[in-house]
Amino acid sequence: MPRYALKVEYDGGPYAGWQRQDGPATVQGAIEAALARLEPGPHTIAAAGRTDAGVHGLGQVAQADLAKAWEPFRLAEALNYHLKPAPIAIVACARVADDWHARFSANERRYLFRLVARRAPLPFERGQVWKVNQPLDAAAMQAGADLLVGHHDFTTFRSSICQADSPVKTLDELTVETVTRPDGYPEYRFHVRARSFLHNQVRSFVGTLERVGAGAWPPERVGEALAARERKACGPVAPPQGLYLAAVKYPSDPFAD
Amino acid sequence: MPRYALKVEYDGGPYAGWQRQDGPATVQGAIEAALARLEPGPHTIAAAGRTDAGVHGLGQVAQADLAKAWEPFRLAEALNYHLKPAPIAIVACARVADDWHARFSANERRYLFRLVARRAPLPFERGQVWKVNQPLDAAAMQAGADLLVGHHDFTTFRSSICQADSPVKTLDELTVETVTRPDGYPEYRFHVRARSFLHNQVRSFVGTLERVGAGAWPPERVGEALAARERKACGPVAPPQGLYLAAVKYPSDPFAD
Repeated sequence: MPRYALKVEYDGGPYAGWQRQDGPATVQGAIEAALARLEPGPHTIAAAGRTDAGVHGLGQVAQADLAKAWEPFRLAEALNYHLKPAPIAIVACARVADDWHARFSANERRYLFRLVARRAPLPFERGQVWKVNQPLDAAAMQAGADLLVGHHDFTTFRSSICQADSPVKTLDELTVETVTRPDGYPEYRFHVRARSFLHNQVRSFVGTLERVGAGAWPPERVGEALAARERKACGPVAPPQGLYLAAVKYPSDPFAD
Repeated sequence: MPRYALKVEYDGGPYAGWQRQDGPATVQGAIEAALARLEPGPHTIAAAGRTDAGVHGLGQVAQADLAKAWEPFRLAEALNYHLKPAPIAIVACARVADDWHARFSANERRYLFRLVARRAPLPFERGQVWKVNQPLDAAAMQAGADLLVGHHDFTTFRSSICQADSPVKTLDELTVETVTRPDGYPEYRFHVRARSFLHNQVRSFVGTLERVGAGAWPPERVGEALAARERKACGPVAPPQGLYLAAVKYPSDPFAD
């Protein structure tokens, strides 16, 4: 059966996460249902990152095996047609080798976390950012973030239900970018990059760094929390709606023309 | 009764426009209902621009008369509290003179129209932009737009139900900005500025210029359509969801600190 790589963008707000469940709507379930409109199912797709409820995808990558050899552009168009009106879009599609795997072939994941500081509600971005009322100290957040980059035991920043074999990971990047929005208020964009992540790792980082930015934690406390290697040393976990799986990298880009 | 100016941001998607109606939800109706939670009503507010169904506000300005002398920041906070979960936010509030009027004191309105060219659906901006499938020729659109700037009879670009006394207006700006989005696709932002506008004027401009950008109309045909001074010479009217009332200007900014 020919295998296809799908690059998927989705608003995670209406979904109980990526992974198919009995009952609640999921992103995987919606895409598998669209596939079943093209070829009789059941279909089982696999993704690079199984995002949690409310977490979004900008560059999620999934794989699907189909019976027929589809022209990739036509497959993407047909899936988008059958996905309507779900807030899920197939933004790229490519034929890949039979032994290529969306999850196991990936060698880098990039996450983006959007945090907006504005007192008034955000009518256009509900469920798409984490809103706080007061501006944050971006330099202090970056100083705290710098203590997390590198090869560490990240037990502190790992959810208690995390199923990874080891809490030891290499964090390649944690950059805090400050953007002035058209409304004049600041948005802090956390760019986070690693080969792989622990469960809730990015939200644990951002929730902890927000405490630093608000002046409640000195930046050094982030390093102490990391060194403690215990979950209770972590700051609050940031809410899911600011988190986006931004990109997944492979040794060779399956979507390169 | 003390008079207040309110700067209002709203997602027009769920509303049958700004203006209060019997039955369907409107932005004016939602704000008046929130005011009634603060002081017994009925309340009647007036706005600088009565946006149509599906049209958004970024810097709409309204006026409200209240019995009590409210501290402006507290009034905005109380209104935002009672507006929840409506996608409407009071982003600024100021006490103004009794003879100040949100509509009649205004001497400039600015609109923004967002047009995105991407084949795949847009999960995060549904109802917030006009999407077309193919990139447009921005230079051709600007050449067409340049023919509209100035003092003209805009009968061609005026809806048949427009109630303005005269079709003659001065268009101060119509700029087509091209922005490369994070997804790599182009977004065309039309910045339109005048003292006042005719009904559907901006959407008539944008729908016509899109035909130019797509190559279906030469830019000169925009000038011929203007000179025709008849509605049937207009191109298609762009859909409401791309349109934002971006700002309203007054001889003295009521929201300046």
